[in-house]
Amino acid sequence: MTYCVAMNLQQGMIFASDSRTNAGVDHIACFRKMKLYQRDGERLIVVLSAGNLATTQSVHSLMEQRINDGHAENLMSLTSMYDVACLFGRTLREVQQRDTSGGQLCSGVDFGASLIVGGQIRGERPRLFNLYAQGNFIESTEDTPYFQIGESKYGKPIIDRVVHYQTDLSEAAKCVLISFDSTIRSNLSVGLPIDLLWCQRDQYQVAMQRRIQRDDPYFSQLSRAWSDGLQQVFGLLPDPWQQS
Amino acid sequence: MTYCVAMNLQQGMIFASDSRTNAGVDHIACFRKMKLYQRDGERLIVVLSAGNLATTQSVHSLMEQRINDGHAENLMSLTSMYDVACLFGRTLREVQQRDTSGGQLCSGVDFGASLIVGGQIRGERPRLFNLYAQGNFIESTEDTPYFQIGESKYGKPIIDRVVHYQTDLSEAAKCVLISFDSTIRSNLSVGLPIDLLWCQRDQYQVAMQRRIQRDDPYFSQLSRAWSDGLQQVFGLLPDPWQQS
Repeated sequence: MTYCVAMNLQQGMIFASDSRTNAGVDHIACFRKMKLYQRDGERLIVVLSAGNLATTQSVHSLMEQRINDGHAENLMSLTSMYDVACLFGRTLREVQQRDTSGGQLCSGVDFGASLIVGGQIRGERPRLFNLYAQGNFIESTEDTPYFQIGESKYGKPIIDRVVHYQTDLSEAAKCVLISFDSTIRSNLSVGLPIDLLWCQRDQYQVAMQRRIQRDDPYFSQLSRAWSDGLQQVFGLLPDPWQQS
Repeated sequence: MTYCVAMNLQQGMIFASDSRTNAGVDHIACFRKMKLYQRDGERLIVVLSAGNLATTQSVHSLMEQRINDGHAENLMSLTSMYDVACLFGRTLREVQQRDTSGGQLCSGVDFGASLIVGGQIRGERPRLFNLYAQGNFIESTEDTPYFQIGESKYGKPIIDRVVHYQTDLSEAAKCVLISFDSTIRSNLSVGLPIDLLWCQRDQYQVAMQRRIQRDDPYFSQLSRAWSDGLQQVFGLLPDPWQQS
């Protein structure tokens, strides 16, 4: 599986993805699931992907090829993030239709993929979209400023408790890492390294980007501090009734 | 959906289940998913159920009817928890076979159910089993002293962090309630009241049993203390790198 999270907050955006790809427990590999398309000072588009790797890689290959070819509609020529989301949706359908011969050759394989597409193009506000395998999508709002794809359940409670639209970028980034820590502990199909990135509103460039490996000192410290803190809070909780 | 947890620890056992049953979001009802079979001082059997309600209710109706009929093999006559688990497995298959006419009439409906069956019969140690829809089952061990069924992912990380075989019953009960609190916040298909019960090793009777409603003072206090504690721990976590 996969675990990816993205947030569109007042100060800017955060994106994070794990790197484990598996086809059965004995076929595990490391693939980056975060992809950037950028032109400094003008646009920054970040894409996180989950699902069939052949599908998502093909989507990105076509996107790049069409930028290089100067295709009429490409990620560098479009003028709104909405159009960018539409283009990803269309390309997602195109690849799945091609690889299944128009739906005739599925042979029990799931060719589906879901994407989180976010970023900002000069002239627009930052926008974040969650694309389904069908290529349709929803957009984040101030009420629901984040999306998850893949193994989302383990790491959802902490985000629901901590993050809202006004949360600081660095606070939210901590929360994202805690959410990954919980997911990685509970689900083997999600694994390090984590790719983490954030960008500030109206900057059109990456403010912080980091690949977090197993021996990352900050992540280890965070993970330990969180675990110790939880145990402490837990120890201080009121005791339950001893009798009915 | 449903969320149920049971633990078989050094001191005794804990069982907890939510009460929400739904067929679509506009068809929600409250059904108890915890069922006891007991003879004080001799045996205590607790069953938690998830999945098709028609199936699980039928399993229990047959179990009761066969106790009353003095059936050759019934829950009061069996002398080991292993045999009890086998009987539940067999009855689970019997009901599913009957209701699907031997697998011919499924019409897209999932007749499956999973059960957690635990307890102690005099002469044996306390034992806990997780039964799959196929009626086969696994047993808990000291390494993995707990089982969850239903919407298990949201509430798994906190159990993985806190509970081990040596954990006190009341500590573990707190953890179970926190696990429910996280699940209920993140998933609409799991809802109050929570049925919670614990029993001590070699007592063959319930030590504590409680139905936790929305206005339960202890659960509200626990939920608030946990939420506040988490926010505090979170606020004390080290800040991430400001720059790559």
